[in-house]
Amino acid sequence: MVKHGEVEFVERLRRRVRIPANSGVVLGIGDDCAIFRPRGSAEDLLFTTDLLIEDVHFQRSTHRAFDVGWKALARGLSDIAAMGGDPRFCLLSLAIAPGITARWIDRFYDGLLQHRVSLVGGDVARADKVTCDIVVAGAVPRGTALRRDGARPGDAIYVSGPLGGAVRFSSRKHLHPEPRLQLGRVLRERLHATACMDISDGLSLDLHRLCQASGLAADITTPPIFRGATLDEALHGGEDYELLFTLPPRTRVPRGLYRIGTMRKGRAGEVLLDGRPLAPLGYDHLR
Amino acid sequence: MVKHGEVEFVERLRRRVRIPANSGVVLGIGDDCAIFRPRGSAEDLLFTTDLLIEDVHFQRSTHRAFDVGWKALARGLSDIAAMGGDPRFCLLSLAIAPGITARWIDRFYDGLLQHRVSLVGGDVARADKVTCDIVVAGAVPRGTALRRDGARPGDAIYVSGPLGGAVRFSSRKHLHPEPRLQLGRVLRERLHATACMDISDGLSLDLHRLCQASGLAADITTPPIFRGATLDEALHGGEDYELLFTLPPRTRVPRGLYRIGTMRKGRAGEVLLDGRPLAPLGYDHLR
Repeated sequence: MVKHGEVEFVERLRRRVRIPANSGVVLGIGDDCAIFRPRGSAEDLLFTTDLLIEDVHFQRSTHRAFDVGWKALARGLSDIAAMGGDPRFCLLSLAIAPGITARWIDRFYDGLLQHRVSLVGGDVARADKVTCDIVVAGAVPRGTALRRDGARPGDAIYVSGPLGGAVRFSSRKHLHPEPRLQLGRVLRERLHATACMDISDGLSLDLHRLCQASGLAADITTPPIFRGATLDEALHGGEDYELLFTLPPRTRVPRGLYRIGTMRKGRAGEVLLDGRPLAPLGYDHLR
Repeated sequence: MVKHGEVEFVERLRRRVRIPANSGVVLGIGDDCAIFRPRGSAEDLLFTTDLLIEDVHFQRSTHRAFDVGWKALARGLSDIAAMGGDPRFCLLSLAIAPGITARWIDRFYDGLLQHRVSLVGGDVARADKVTCDIVVAGAVPRGTALRRDGARPGDAIYVSGPLGGAVRFSSRKHLHPEPRLQLGRVLRERLHATACMDISDGLSLDLHRLCQASGLAADITTPPIFRGATLDEALHGGEDYELLFTLPPRTRVPRGLYRIGTMRKGRAGEVLLDGRPLAPLGYDHLR
């Protein structure tokens, strides 16, 4: 078994990979998307991949084919939103399991294509469990992608909505997450967010990651809680697909954004909730 | 169950997808790679994804972790080679199964990183079976990508090596395929190939696809057979990762390339071997 969790896994891998200086790669492993700068282009391209696996991320009994297709792409789009990007195209690798009908596949693609992102390729195979891997490419004007590592001491910490609403498999928030693409653009263009990521694995773990990337600590208070969810679910529950971001202090923000705290110097990655350490208990894909 | 095979599946999907004219997408579903033209760039980018699934494409008992890692990326690189591209970067989504050790993962990445392509991101999850989905991006000078749909009547048909050598799981050809990146470049730059693809699912099926894409038929003779393989394996066996390509008649070719026939007008997709119809019996991922 793999002993360490995802954070250590990714960090270990990141250290192993050498990226040549002239490769066009601006940002590699460790953020919501990789950033690639095509030669001569005024745009940077963003790339992300996301797995969605039957009986791990969804169940055929509770998730209709349409919802699975919608969600497969929504997860990737949320990563593009987190960098302030516009989606350009996607590819899908799909493994089909026994019992899957042609109608199920049609409805799956109905859900996926609902996002109106050009599907340009992928792969197909048979397997024991339905397995989707979505690849999404997005774009931002050169050098403007929002990253996790740009927060500064004193920056205000925000979330884009109440948290914890996606913990229950039956909830609309879980079945039909809405990627925050428009907000991502606003954060990049108008509010000049200093750091941004999506909350896919729970606030406690994702804020810990943002703090680590920026080399800072964070003081927060209780975040807004989705109606019917518990504090625990709001702090550690996954799949919210809200955005977590930092703004220069005294930035005027539109309605519907919730300030939850402040970045400060300190042990990189440390998060205090009302003055007490908040353990990064969010969803770890390798624990 | 899905009744139709992969060819119909892909065609059905291709017809459903609408790609806006100003999207930058030059070529969508149906070739070895999608082609994307970044705004203002002198290069076109190529994108491909390939699944490699335990007990479907490999077995843990016969494939060492290093070989699985090597092969996961080799499959994608072969698609880049087929379009005449230079690899730029890759992403990997990896689902880890019970019993997989940290050492197995290290060796897997040893094999993958051996190709010296920048790994810039991906995803990780747990699942019942080891599942890899590789994404590879490549580049060609604008408008020069080799495609399946450019063959002309009278063009000579070639393969880049003896076929059928990868059918046996234990063979070196199967465990350690060498993507034909250098040849792909030569075909694009010097030999001006009119069409090209890699042979991943067997000559009979892949030549059928090339003929369909080009709207032509093909007359071939017995292809070169890998030592120890049967004629059947050479015609229909998968995973050769040799290139199948067409050249204008009377092109002078370097050594090590094998002419197997000629493109002609006729029923699109029809292939005759020594004058008799050759059924596209190669590996269909959905049959």
